Amino acid sequence: MLIVMHHWATEQDVEEVKRTIVAQGLKPVAIPGAERTAIGVIGNQGWIDDAPFRTIKSILEIIHVTKPYKLVSRDFHPSDTVIKLGDGVRIGGKSPLLMIAGPCAIESREQIFRTARFLKKLGVPMMRGGAYKPRTSPHSFQGLREKGLELLDEARKETGILVVTEVMSPEHVELVAQKVDVLQIGARNMQNYDLLNEAGKAKKPVILKRGLSATVEEWLASAEYVLLGGNPEVILCERGIRTFETATRNTADLAVVPLVKTISHLPVIVDPSHATGRRDLVPHMSLAAVVVGAHGLMLEVHPDPEHALSDGPQSLHFKEFEKLLRRIEGLKDFMKTL
Amino acid sequence: MLIVMHHWATEQDVEEVKRTIVAQGLKPVAIPGAERTAIGVIGNQGWIDDAPFRTIKSILEIIHVTKPYKLVSRDFHPSDTVIKLGDGVRIGGKSPLLMIAGPCAIESREQIFRTARFLKKLGVPMMRGGAYKPRTSPHSFQGLREKGLELLDEARKETGILVVTEVMSPEHVELVAQKVDVLQIGARNMQNYDLLNEAGKAKKPVILKRGLSATVEEWLASAEYVLLGGNPEVILCERGIRTFETATRNTADLAVVPLVKTISHLPVIVDPSHATGRRDLVPHMSLAAVVVGAHGLMLEVHPDPEHALSDGPQSLHFKEFEKLLRRIEGLKDFMKTL
Amino acid sequence: MLIVMHHWATEQDVEEVKRTIVAQGLKPVAIPGAERTAIGVIGNQGWIDDAPFRTIKSILEIIHVTKPYKLVSRDFHPSDTVIKLGDGVRIGGKSPLLMIAGPCAIESREQIFRTARFLKKLGVPMMRGGAYKPRTSPHSFQGLREKGLELLDEARKETGILVVTEVMSPEHVELVAQKVDVLQIGARNMQNYDLLNEAGKAKKPVILKRGLSATVEEWLASAEYVLLGGNPEVILCERGIRTFETATRNTADLAVVPLVKTISHLPVIVDPSHATGRRDLVPHMSLAAVVVGAHGLMLEVHPDPEHALSDGPQSLHFKEFEKLLRRIEGLKDFMKTL
Amino acid sequence: MLIVMHHWATEQDVEEVKRTIVAQGLKPVAIPGAERTAIGVIGNQGWIDDAPFRTIKSILEIIHVTKPYKLVSRDFHPSDTVIKLGDGVRIGGKSPLLMIAGPCAIESREQIFRTARFLKKLGVPMMRGGAYKPRTSPHSFQGLREKGLELLDEARKETGILVVTEVMSPEHVELVAQKVDVLQIGARNMQNYDLLNEAGKAKKPVILKRGLSATVEEWLASAEYVLLGGNPEVILCERGIRTFETATRNTADLAVVPLVKTISHLPVIVDPSHATGRRDLVPHMSLAAVVVGAHGLMLEVHPDPEHALSDGPQSLHFKEFEKLLRRIEGLKDFMKTL
Repeated sequence: MLIVMHHWATEQDVEEVKRTIVAQGLKPVAIPGAERTAIGVIGNQGWIDDAPFRTIKSILEIIHVTKPYKLVSRDFHPSDTVIKLGDGVRIGGKSPLLMIAGPCAIESREQIFRTARFLKKLGVPMMRGGAYKPRTSPHSFQGLREKGLELLDEARKETGILVVTEVMSPEHVELVAQKVDVLQIGARNMQNYDLLNEAGKAKKPVILKRGLSATVEEWLASAEYVLLGGNPEVILCERGIRTFETATRNTADLAVVPLVKTISHLPVIVDPSHATGRRDLVPHMSLAAVVVGAHGLMLEVHPDPEHALSDGPQSLHFKEFEKLLRRIEGLKDFMKTL
Repeated sequence: MLIVMHHWATEQDVEEVKRTIVAQGLKPVAIPGAERTAIGVIGNQGWIDDAPFRTIKSILEIIHVTKPYKLVSRDFHPSDTVIKLGDGVRIGGKSPLLMIAGPCAIESREQIFRTARFLKKLGVPMMRGGAYKPRTSPHSFQGLREKGLELLDEARKETGILVVTEVMSPEHVELVAQKVDVLQIGARNMQNYDLLNEAGKAKKPVILKRGLSATVEEWLASAEYVLLGGNPEVILCERGIRTFETATRNTADLAVVPLVKTISHLPVIVDPSHATGRRDLVPHMSLAAVVVGAHGLMLEVHPDPEHALSDGPQSLHFKEFEKLLRRIEGLKDFMKTL
Repeated sequence: MLIVMHHWATEQDVEEVKRTIVAQGLKPVAIPGAERTAIGVIGNQGWIDDAPFRTIKSILEIIHVTKPYKLVSRDFHPSDTVIKLGDGVRIGGKSPLLMIAGPCAIESREQIFRTARFLKKLGVPMMRGGAYKPRTSPHSFQGLREKGLELLDEARKETGILVVTEVMSPEHVELVAQKVDVLQIGARNMQNYDLLNEAGKAKKPVILKRGLSATVEEWLASAEYVLLGGNPEVILCERGIRTFETATRNTADLAVVPLVKTISHLPVIVDPSHATGRRDLVPHMSLAAVVVGAHGLMLEVHPDPEHALSDGPQSLHFKEFEKLLRRIEGLKDFMKTL
Repeated sequence: MLIVMHHWATEQDVEEVKRTIVAQGLKPVAIPGAERTAIGVIGNQGWIDDAPFRTIKSILEIIHVTKPYKLVSRDFHPSDTVIKLGDGVRIGGKSPLLMIAGPCAIESREQIFRTARFLKKLGVPMMRGGAYKPRTSPHSFQGLREKGLELLDEARKETGILVVTEVMSPEHVELVAQKVDVLQIGARNMQNYDLLNEAGKAKKPVILKRGLSATVEEWLASAEYVLLGGNPEVILCERGIRTFETATRNTADLAVVPLVKTISHLPVIVDPSHATGRRDLVPHMSLAAVVVGAHGLMLEVHPDPEHALSDGPQSLHFKEFEKLLRRIEGLKDFMKTL
């Protein structure tokens, strides 16, 4: 931690800060400057609570050097986390790109079975499908909830495809974890801490979507909740952030993929469907996600997007998805050279 | 709803759109333009689901005229909602400014009782205090939880002050509603829909904070969840939004106070503590919130901010709070002239 | 400056950084921490160029303690800058609130004279009016340019009102400075450095609007250009920033008024018309700007906003402006108590 | 244009709007709805000025269907613009990816000649290098200005490499256009309209960078200024936008590349150096820009980034650049399949 004093701070002020540091069992190192004095704080093990310093008037700024997370950091876990998702299916490290696809919402048995069989045939290992749907308006379709969960479970058993679904409440975590292979925590719930804590107790991997306006630091701190709760299997998912630009639904922040991989050992995937909100842009951004090094892609695909109950405009038709898969396949040789 | 066609759309394309409109039981009105054709949709009662239109390729844009909320709108409830909070304490409409103050987190019996007595003495009708604390890092203080709730309840009973606390999980709503006078839903949970639904069943008023990057439309749609659930007593709370500016913790968006009052009948309050994150800016922004017409203020005040376990830098000292109260009092005559 | 090393940095890495510091004629102070080492840099006079350090791989982060401006800072000029604008008209420090009002664009002799006489009658000391208009679309009205300047000059001479107008090009600065009392640099040109340099040579005060997405630090650094050029008379103007919210044209960031006053000695004014973009919100935000301590207000008022060639929806009618003036007058006694 | 009435609007209000439409020589089409009436406006040729409508109180919202640009749109120019930059060097349409590389700022003869020869040897057709440098702080290096221009010109003549440099003032356009092959308008000047107008008269192609917080619509409207001025050769350049995220210098908005290509016929390139601000992320984002369909890349490369006078941390070393070139080369076969 670095404490920067106001330019008008007197020697007494500096002494007061030093005493406060010592009182915390830490050690001060003064850094006198041309304009103002700074005081380094040493001797800490991890994050320092800056509460005792925050109201000393002669302090201009408190700069934290230590980050608000630890377990998710490469500093403490240098090698990549590789998560086993099913027989021969892994994500993270050097594992091959994981494809996850499926409708935004589970709407009917026919819809979910058609999609599961279609994906299975193409060799896509995991299907997404929302049972509990977070919707801006209470007047929109809210998901089939428990019934949707059952349909997902049936489709999984019958086709052998792995499934992931969003869980919105702490009290649903246990139930959902029984029915699916991977839990998803949505962007709107990235800082729903009771939910994160509960996911930390689950025995299933968790896809943690980045919040609409979450910094990388906050995103990783949210993942830290899950790891600290006892669940080391977290997959980070970039899904676009909210900016001033309204031409796309969100702004895909692809640079965070290589960035997060330098900071954290956790796998990182990208959801180009929510990141763009437009079907025609999804293929481009999927390819981009692959070449920046994403460990996986999560895509919305629907047998009949024109009649989808949610996110139709960003869902790919089956044919478009097949075409995109072939394109991604075409990148395989290139990716080996990276 | 207005459907704007691509400039290259043919007459057949326009006919396809018209047929789709008719198939929904609605009526099309063509608006041929110099560059492109637009088609108005009429005959609807409320929000139209645009799913069937979203994948017609010849459509450039779909513009909704109807809003994703209804019950919170002045269109359906022209007069101000006035909520009774306790004997002689009301918020909304022409009720006097409601002051809510207290620490960010409940830390100890002594802290919360000192604060309650101090506020009571000054005539402040309601105290805030967090039992469940949403914190970015799992390594930070997480609140006293149930124990905090008990302390709040005791302080309420002993001093007669009204209390409000944040509820973070659907499963806690019932318990919390028994212990406090007003429930708070925090910014990070503004789109936690299961929580909103549960709050809709509570018999206590709800303060709904605006999300960090929530538009006014999304904020009102979240309030709609609570009203639709059966609870008409929602108080909206602006607490600053996330922008590129980091000189303040958030950016206070005070213009939404008069704006929301034109759209909705619900009371609107302001939290200048979170909006600025800096104690020295809180008094200025409190006065500003009053003159733009806020129905109330929610302020962080602490007997010893230097040692607060959270939000110390934005908490007022007792003396500063007293001074601010006197300043606000000084605006009383002015406010009558508005 | 503080240099934070990666956690894996070796002693040799630390030595390399220290040598680089010494090579700049500066002195290193090591701050060994639990997780990583930090190195303070001392001995500098003002801003340190961090170029020689930026590519040392073992460095995690470089933190500047010194700001990119100096002349605009209270550190170097503790007392308020008060600028004389005309006989008995001053801005800054304890001077009374300065009202500036007028149309967005100068449209005709009749329009500008009607406005000048109306304002003069009300005792408003300064009129605004755009001759050169920055417009998003080249198909929109671009201003009367030189002819507008002449009209402004005539209105000034005939009515005795002070005038301010925007200058968009370095080559126009001299001409415009001859015709008006105050130059304005618009939000879109806040980082047009050739223009700032030229304004630094002008003999007239400069209103510097904050850029649409400019941080406080960048805004002050832009003001530094003008001061460094030799012109100490800069008035900062907050006019709303661009955020994700589209319900208002911009988001008024009123907290920067008291904030900037703690950092800088320059006067700060607010433009509630551009900050909101909606006539009905302008009065509320004007009052708010006054109570947060703005040294002045810049408002759009038009004899016939319905037919204004630009910014009609945010321009006040004469009657609305008169009413607002009376309301602000009603705050006078209150303001004395602050 | 679509005019949406308030829900309380009476028949007389609707009549007033219709009369106003007719008075503009246009035709109204009423779209009565369940909650409110909307009125379509037809008969216009291009953009309608909404001034006469903006202050009718019974109007809730005015929605423009026509865009603020025309010449840059595919509606009016369906086929791709291909710009000839030198012998055998073209950009746009199906032309091969254009590489532009070089230092942020021209610092010395040796630096710029070393870079020019290095790039020429690698077959890179165009070099960038700033003579006039826009810098946040006036205390930072401001560029060699005219002397830099001369060095660029010499390097161009001696090595035969094409060159591009930024022009910051209208008065410099003519001079700069004589010395370089392509003019650049920087992000901070994207809405410097006098500069855009002047660039419209230049006989050289113009790279127009997207502003820090410019929407796609505003960016295209700025390009429209140049085309309307008579210069059809505009290359759009995405360079990252300003968001709340500070982990990267800006947020690269790659989705706008395919998006803009659907709206406009102009070539679009990407600058991954400014978009990320971090050398280690530049290669990833360069590859991503290629696969989303960028017509070119503009990269910062420096013989000695450790001692660069500006943007060192985001400049590639020669070796890193060579490696990146080979990687991009590796995408060639893949790109042919798209």
